[in-house]
Amino acid sequence: MSITAPTGEVHDQVPHHETKRTEYNLVQVKGTWTRKNRKTLRKNENERVSSAKIHECSEGRGTTWTVVSPIVFTYQVIQTQNLLDPSNDALLTGHIRDPQQLELLRGSHKPLKRFVVMDETVFKLYGCQVTDYFESRDVLYRILPLPTTEEKKSMEMVMMMLNEVHKFGIDRRTEPIIAIGGGVCLDIVGLAASLYRRRTPYIRVPTSLLSYIDASVGAKNGVNFANCKNKLGSYIPPAAALLDRSFIQTLPRRHISNGMAEMLKMALMKHKGLFELLEEQGRFLLDSRFQSNNVDLTSAAAVTTRVAIETMLEELAPNLWEDDLDRLVDFGHLISPALEMEVLPALLHGEAVNIDMAFMVYVAHERGLVTEDEKLRIVDCMLGLELPVWHRGFTLALVQRALRERLRHSGGLVRMPLPTGLGCAEIFNDTDDETLCHAYERWCDELGPGLSS
Amino acid sequence: MSITAPTGEVHDQVPHHETKRTEYNLVQVKGTWTRKNRKTLRKNENERVSSAKIHECSEGRGTTWTVVSPIVFTYQVIQTQNLLDPSNDALLTGHIRDPQQLELLRGSHKPLKRFVVMDETVFKLYGCQVTDYFESRDVLYRILPLPTTEEKKSMEMVMMMLNEVHKFGIDRRTEPIIAIGGGVCLDIVGLAASLYRRRTPYIRVPTSLLSYIDASVGAKNGVNFANCKNKLGSYIPPAAALLDRSFIQTLPRRHISNGMAEMLKMALMKHKGLFELLEEQGRFLLDSRFQSNNVDLTSAAAVTTRVAIETMLEELAPNLWEDDLDRLVDFGHLISPALEMEVLPALLHGEAVNIDMAFMVYVAHERGLVTEDEKLRIVDCMLGLELPVWHRGFTLALVQRALRERLRHSGGLVRMPLPTGLGCAEIFNDTDDETLCHAYERWCDELGPGLSS
Repeated sequence: MSITAPTGEVHDQVPHHETKRTEYNLVQVKGTWTRKNRKTLRKNENERVSSAKIHECSEGRGTTWTVVSPIVFTYQVIQTQNLLDPSNDALLTGHIRDPQQLELLRGSHKPLKRFVVMDETVFKLYGCQVTDYFESRDVLYRILPLPTTEEKKSMEMVMMMLNEVHKFGIDRRTEPIIAIGGGVCLDIVGLAASLYRRRTPYIRVPTSLLSYIDASVGAKNGVNFANCKNKLGSYIPPAAALLDRSFIQTLPRRHISNGMAEMLKMALMKHKGLFELLEEQGRFLLDSRFQSNNVDLTSAAAVTTRVAIETMLEELAPNLWEDDLDRLVDFGHLISPALEMEVLPALLHGEAVNIDMAFMVYVAHERGLVTEDEKLRIVDCMLGLELPVWHRGFTLALVQRALRERLRHSGGLVRMPLPTGLGCAEIFNDTDDETLCHAYERWCDELGPGLSS
Repeated sequence: MSITAPTGEVHDQVPHHETKRTEYNLVQVKGTWTRKNRKTLRKNENERVSSAKIHECSEGRGTTWTVVSPIVFTYQVIQTQNLLDPSNDALLTGHIRDPQQLELLRGSHKPLKRFVVMDETVFKLYGCQVTDYFESRDVLYRILPLPTTEEKKSMEMVMMMLNEVHKFGIDRRTEPIIAIGGGVCLDIVGLAASLYRRRTPYIRVPTSLLSYIDASVGAKNGVNFANCKNKLGSYIPPAAALLDRSFIQTLPRRHISNGMAEMLKMALMKHKGLFELLEEQGRFLLDSRFQSNNVDLTSAAAVTTRVAIETMLEELAPNLWEDDLDRLVDFGHLISPALEMEVLPALLHGEAVNIDMAFMVYVAHERGLVTEDEKLRIVDCMLGLELPVWHRGFTLALVQRALRERLRHSGGLVRMPLPTGLGCAEIFNDTDDETLCHAYERWCDELGPGLSS
């Protein structure tokens, strides 16, 4: 962000004194911060200089202070194995980066305390293992199973959860809240933790493929509001996301396809190699549920998940708070949120995203950005991943409404990511209505009722 | 924050491949971000290099990515006059720092749109002026008056407000929500705006002296929860705080005293000159309600408010998210939140803070940090500002409970700011129970029933 001179009104009745601008650094001596004029700043050993700055501009009508304060967010995405094996420390201390702090903790005899939120279904499958883990590690714990479905993803659930957290009592600094579940669970817990005492650390343990490669990797959290998807939330990253592929083995096949939609998104936007892997190994990955010999880092399961995360991190890390509105990761997310909320619970998130992407591939083709052959390969790959490529709820009216809404919230530009070949993409702001209509017709003709419903 | 090597479990069943660590920068070319090994990074004109970084550490059991992403918060604190005069632009465009954006806006014929939340009482006093302002500036506006009292400062009020915001419809990027009122109003609106679409800009217009020098200046917002003060909230600063001293003329005298408590806090912690001004001019400031000739920047009202804000910004800017737990601005805030919530609505915030400060001055005296004469001067100044210096609800049990609670949430240290003279202070972690008891006895003896109730 750049700093420019503060602007404001000029009042005639106030005499114009000379305008005085000063830039201050902030220096701490013995616990007290003091402003120091930037020009006179000299390095002193006993002083701590902040990266924050204060710009002061004094005029006749008063002073304007511009505060510039950088906050550094640091978080870890950790691949691990056998997360729930009591000999694995990751769940308890994996988020601690400071070796000294870790040493202190290991030497301490105070029992650890953890509040754990689990999706209800995940609790049925893994509740015993999680309980055993904490019991055998002598942790004071409380597990709260919640029905974390898209329909119940609300501030009410956040508040209900926080009531339980408050009753249990945790140390805001050292006792992170743990979320174990799919994207909805991770989003709800992320928001609740971010609000509690203005920021309590939390840990994400994704149990679905979708959340493994998507919700876990970034900073976003949130809940639905006024029938709008993720309308309330924040950008506070977890202390750590702990990734264990073995959870995927209990996932229904449809939910594995669902996760592969977000993988395919990254492939289409920026990684041809990942696209080709999904084309060739998609069926195998579905059949084998992303399980492979843990030691084999070259297996399709290992490579596709790793590349999906790497490409996602590349796009998210430089834009953690989404200040830049041009985002390739928005591909498949322009129309799908409206579709998803409209037909709930008929479509899973990744399914809605895939339908959006399929349509957008037709838009890209209509604009001459991808060839007929590339379009067919993409659609075939989607079908191979057992993902829907069309939906009756995805009407032209919905498309137009969603894009109008996007215009309003994206600084007047539609910022439409479109593939420009296989594994490369750009953002476009000039797709006219005629192109959209033609693409829509063709999409319905080729992929509409009869092929998919 | 420092980055250290990620730590984690070691599993015997997994063979130890060589550990590979790489630090990546992120570079954007034609809209796509790519990781580049730090060592091979060369500056290229068409590339945009992010300040974010990704550290990758690959081992046999998988990869750990550490994401380091700095977010720069920039906000303005703007002193202005005649804020509600239709010729004053500040309320509509004062927050815009980019001259180009301002130019564009001035050239546009699209009407501006603003959602305004006002405290109910403030609305009764200034509602017409605000309405006139927006009418005469052809703004599409909606004013929502709310009973923003400490007792009603809850997530329910945030949600109620957001329902109205949603119905009205605003552009997340360019149509900031405006809050006009005291600290509670600014806190509620700040939290609501921070949550809406994960961050909607908002503007603070403080109408009380307390919020003028305190709530306006920092990034904190929040609501009460589970009978705990500001238990839920965030650290998202406003786009701008617009300060107009003229609102203070309609403030009841008791509320002016209330604000002066936070001023006195800054004086005691770090500015002897401010303390002496409050000592000498306190009564006059109360009588004149901080009104003075606008042109006179040397009036007591102008100087005390300016110094209070400057000293506050010095402490807040380097520690916007309160990562550093040693905070001088916590003076008077160790016991007072518990007292305030317990006796609501008997005490105003600044009053509770002052009672806490008065007790802490006795602790400082007991420890030999301030002389008897300094102690008396401070207490006299407090009484001159018409602030309570003792309260029957402030029991020794409350003190001990609050300090225990603080220990739990401050990384095991009590971090007690204490004056070490007039206008200077330090943080102490070693105040023993005996000292507290002696100080408490003496405090009750000298300032207890009879003098104040």
